Amino acid sequence: MDKSQTPDNRTITIDLLAQRGVCLEDIAHLVLELQKGYYSDLTFAECLESVMRVLDKREVQNAILTGLTLDILTERGLVDEPLASILRNDDNLYGIDEILSLSIVNVYGSIGLTNFGYLDKLKPGIIGSINGKNNRVNTFLDDIVAAIAAAASARIAHRARAVPTGD
Amino acid sequence: MDKSQTPDNRTITIDLLAQRGVCLEDIAHLVLELQKGYYSDLTFAECLESVMRVLDKREVQNAILTGLTLDILTERGLVDEPLASILRNDDNLYGIDEILSLSIVNVYGSIGLTNFGYLDKLKPGIIGSINGKNNRVNTFLDDIVAAIAAAASARIAHRARAVPTGD
Amino acid sequence: MDKSQTPDNRTITIDLLAQRGVCLEDIAHLVLELQKGYYSDLTFAECLESVMRVLDKREVQNAILTGLTLDILTERGLVDEPLASILRNDDNLYGIDEILSLSIVNVYGSIGLTNFGYLDKLKPGIIGSINGKNNRVNTFLDDIVAAIAAAASARIAHRARAVPTGD
Amino acid sequence: MDKSQTPDNRTITIDLLAQRGVCLEDIAHLVLELQKGYYSDLTFAECLESVMRVLDKREVQNAILTGLTLDILTERGLVDEPLASILRNDDNLYGIDEILSLSIVNVYGSIGLTNFGYLDKLKPGIIGSINGKNNRVNTFLDDIVAAIAAAASARIAHRARAVPTGD
Repeated sequence: MDKSQTPDNRTITIDLLAQRGVCLEDIAHLVLELQKGYYSDLTFAECLESVMRVLDKREVQNAILTGLTLDILTERGLVDEPLASILRNDDNLYGIDEILSLSIVNVYGSIGLTNFGYLDKLKPGIIGSINGKNNRVNTFLDDIVAAIAAAASARIAHRARAVPTGD
Repeated sequence: MDKSQTPDNRTITIDLLAQRGVCLEDIAHLVLELQKGYYSDLTFAECLESVMRVLDKREVQNAILTGLTLDILTERGLVDEPLASILRNDDNLYGIDEILSLSIVNVYGSIGLTNFGYLDKLKPGIIGSINGKNNRVNTFLDDIVAAIAAAASARIAHRARAVPTGD
Repeated sequence: MDKSQTPDNRTITIDLLAQRGVCLEDIAHLVLELQKGYYSDLTFAECLESVMRVLDKREVQNAILTGLTLDILTERGLVDEPLASILRNDDNLYGIDEILSLSIVNVYGSIGLTNFGYLDKLKPGIIGSINGKNNRVNTFLDDIVAAIAAAASARIAHRARAVPTGD
Repeated sequence: MDKSQTPDNRTITIDLLAQRGVCLEDIAHLVLELQKGYYSDLTFAECLESVMRVLDKREVQNAILTGLTLDILTERGLVDEPLASILRNDDNLYGIDEILSLSIVNVYGSIGLTNFGYLDKLKPGIIGSINGKNNRVNTFLDDIVAAIAAAASARIAHRARAVPTGD
């Protein structure tokens, strides 16, 4: 693999999210809602930028590619039982969707956990729309969207107080 | 150490929570609020029982003993800077309170994450009262209470569908 | 779903491990190697029993079903790029195999982390045999086996000092 | 708090490690041992640089400050029972030292888990020296050192394949 791989996987990841009905602006809106109470001058553009930076991370891309692949293959009838039924029914005892999301939330530290749980429980904005779709398997998608928004929010909180470290 | 240690540490843990202003009934109320929408016949006694079972777990006891010790020693002025200021101000970028809470939430699997984040964000019931107290350091206490309630809720969800395994 | 589901999924999980070349005795051998230095009277039967109890847990079953499904579907050519190549090459920067394994390790608390890392690095016994197989995709399998052995070891360590709690 | 805080806390963290008998060069040696088999041209200076970058992260600093504070306060007799005995004896069922270390390991993703477990089990170099000291409480220190080395190794692995992202 050459050094151009990371940006390519990011593009594929963003395309895959779009194909599943989620654009980055939808996620940036969640971030703005979560953070505007703390940072009165926070702009939508900054929220979108923060979502983009989260999607630069290799572990985030891998978590998204893996989760959405499981959603898609289940939808196509290629996953065996009992996993197929667990994923089709978004079984609330499954737990692996939360585990995968945790690896996204944690890229900017554990301070993202609270916002992740809050979004996953209340399902505002795009997250609620995802859950309402019939005939689709979106067991991983809704948690992944909540996790990206929570990580992007954590990044904003860190940067509000940090000096740049270039790493 | 002999085999009678575990119940003793549980008693010490419960006493320490009480000394910091939290009784098990307060936590059981949070559990009932979280779960009554899913299990219409759930009783307060079952929620209290579930909180007790969470507190039987050694890792839960250790997380509580460790977090509350840090709160108490900071209150007594025995913790050096810069940690003392971080803990006194309940700095939202600290992150270690969430990490410690995660080890409590996870005793019944990752399905507890959502409820933990929700409680930690909205701070209902006893959690809000904890945060309102002046002159006290409760940086760990509020997250710990949310984590115990989330774990007790996860235990109820698992048991609603499980056969007993005796382990 | 009725109450008989959990044991069924356990059977399916054990069958799936066998189909991928791993029997429970292989894992029990790893547990005995890890623990015999600490508990001189530990028997192979107790190690096998501990492996079985780990496999009783719903979150463990779900992690195994999910990881092995990804290995199998990749082998069958049903996974799209770039994930297919990442999984075929067992890319050491993938990270999701470790994340999934963590949810197995953690069922008996974080004390299993050390043994998991040790097994995953040195790849003794069955774990090394898995990695040596050509034409197969076992990116998740080796980590899952290490995680089951680490969790079963943690369970033995806890029980050596605990009184039964019936939960 | 102003924007100059982060570098200051890094200095305090490095001083605290030195005061407990660990210099950054000791940790860099562990990193070089772990990684030289994979990157034949890796230098000691690059390993030391990677350790420094890990220590730039706020969550890493907070985990170190918190863990070493618990070691020090226990040594000074300021921690109550039963936690004092658990920490003095480095009880292998405690688990909170591993949890805190996990928040360090995870700053460069879950790929650091394997190296963390390996170091924590075999205790090479400085980690073994820490464990051999009598009259000192170093329950957190040895895990923290293993975690910093594992995170610095993960950073090297990521950078060997990444394009710079400036974040």
